[in-house]
Amino acid sequence: MENLFIIKIGGNVIDDAGALADFLRSLSGVEGKKILVHGGGKVATQVGDQLGIASQYVNGRRITDAATLEVVTMVYGGLVNKNIVAQLQQLGCNAIGLTGADGNLLRGKKRAVKAIDYGFAGDVLAADVNRALLVSLLEAGLMPVLAPLTHDGAGQLLNTNADTIASVVAVALSGQYTTRLLYCFEKRGVLRDVADEDSVIAEINPTNYMQLLTEGVLADGMIPKLENALEAVKAGVAEVLIGSAKDIAANMTGEVRGTVVRREG
Amino acid sequence: MENLFIIKIGGNVIDDAGALADFLRSLSGVEGKKILVHGGGKVATQVGDQLGIASQYVNGRRITDAATLEVVTMVYGGLVNKNIVAQLQQLGCNAIGLTGADGNLLRGKKRAVKAIDYGFAGDVLAADVNRALLVSLLEAGLMPVLAPLTHDGAGQLLNTNADTIASVVAVALSGQYTTRLLYCFEKRGVLRDVADEDSVIAEINPTNYMQLLTEGVLADGMIPKLENALEAVKAGVAEVLIGSAKDIAANMTGEVRGTVVRREG
Repeated sequence: MENLFIIKIGGNVIDDAGALADFLRSLSGVEGKKILVHGGGKVATQVGDQLGIASQYVNGRRITDAATLEVVTMVYGGLVNKNIVAQLQQLGCNAIGLTGADGNLLRGKKRAVKAIDYGFAGDVLAADVNRALLVSLLEAGLMPVLAPLTHDGAGQLLNTNADTIASVVAVALSGQYTTRLLYCFEKRGVLRDVADEDSVIAEINPTNYMQLLTEGVLADGMIPKLENALEAVKAGVAEVLIGSAKDIAANMTGEVRGTVVRREG
Repeated sequence: MENLFIIKIGGNVIDDAGALADFLRSLSGVEGKKILVHGGGKVATQVGDQLGIASQYVNGRRITDAATLEVVTMVYGGLVNKNIVAQLQQLGCNAIGLTGADGNLLRGKKRAVKAIDYGFAGDVLAADVNRALLVSLLEAGLMPVLAPLTHDGAGQLLNTNADTIASVVAVALSGQYTTRLLYCFEKRGVLRDVADEDSVIAEINPTNYMQLLTEGVLADGMIPKLENALEAVKAGVAEVLIGSAKDIAANMTGEVRGTVVRREG
């Protein structure tokens, strides 16, 4: 099967115009089929603050009230998404920016209210991905650029985690393509020693993951990311690569500098 | 050839949630291939004001400085576009929201600075429309929803008049489809007497247009609209219909209540 790269970028790239330009240049230099998923970054918080809408977070997740939903729809779906698309077009990459509402691409489900009411926050599963549309866009030579918004099919947009979108898209398309999921973050990879940038763990699989957990070397924030990555490879994704946005071209072309998560050791 | 409707809505529909919902319900009830083009409305001005960015207009056109471009990218490309798409999805209409940067749909050109510097305002011609992409989306059963933004291919988004986008798209696709362009505005049609809502002129063509001009019955604001409409039909659009958003279903299904602009009398 043909390779398909699903690349997720977050605030550390989006919030830095120079870093974003460098990243997009590297990304567009790599041949092949690609889907880019972006998070929001600080712009939404800044715009919200200017509009007098304070951002609220619980356990690192934004609480999306109606006013905040308007802000993230503007900033993620409009400002961030369209600027990335315009830049990719300049680089000769035929990008098309979409939210989950567009073409019914991602049908999310409003998160149930339990201890916390996350508001208009949505969760999405691989079964909720409109595979046919993504395949037709990819086969037409387009590169989908996905904003972290889904819709519930009843007229409601939902703020949705970009890591999750990248993962469910990769899983959903793993029957059609050899899907490689790349999470770009601020470190070169998963580090054995957070103080040592050179301590990148080359590979993580279910076997050595248990070992690493036992050794207690993994940063707390990495554990949910790795569990998601292990879930994704279990569900059909060929590999998940966790690395720096700066190493995107190397990580996509086999000269891997980050951490690869695989199904088997 | 199959019919294709290109429908343009502006502030009088977008700014009124109830009117917009009614319009989208009527529109989605009419079968056939459709493209919706929307303007911005007052939301951009409101958001701009809240962000401390004053809107400037010269001759009814917004001056788009860098800060204003950010606002319109957020509001037109994000908030307005995605809310329309989500509502159409609810109505069973497979809408896909796009700007001119998406899939290189509309390659605009920054307006040359002469007496007035319009800033990041773009003009677009029928030759700048990515016909292949629009046809493939339409043939896949999707309904493109276009925000009034183009890009210059060099990474720059450009604020672009929605009436013009609707017109160039209709012209560009007139080889593939029998294109019918519908401009929705606040009146039922072009009025012979602005004080009399029932004085709708049923048809305007190059012959009676000269007559109407001579009679001096046309409102000043209608003249550029009608000249654009006459240009469009001359360039291949089957007809241009000027009418109320409330009459959209009637106007699309032949029970015409507005003004039809045709090539010949």
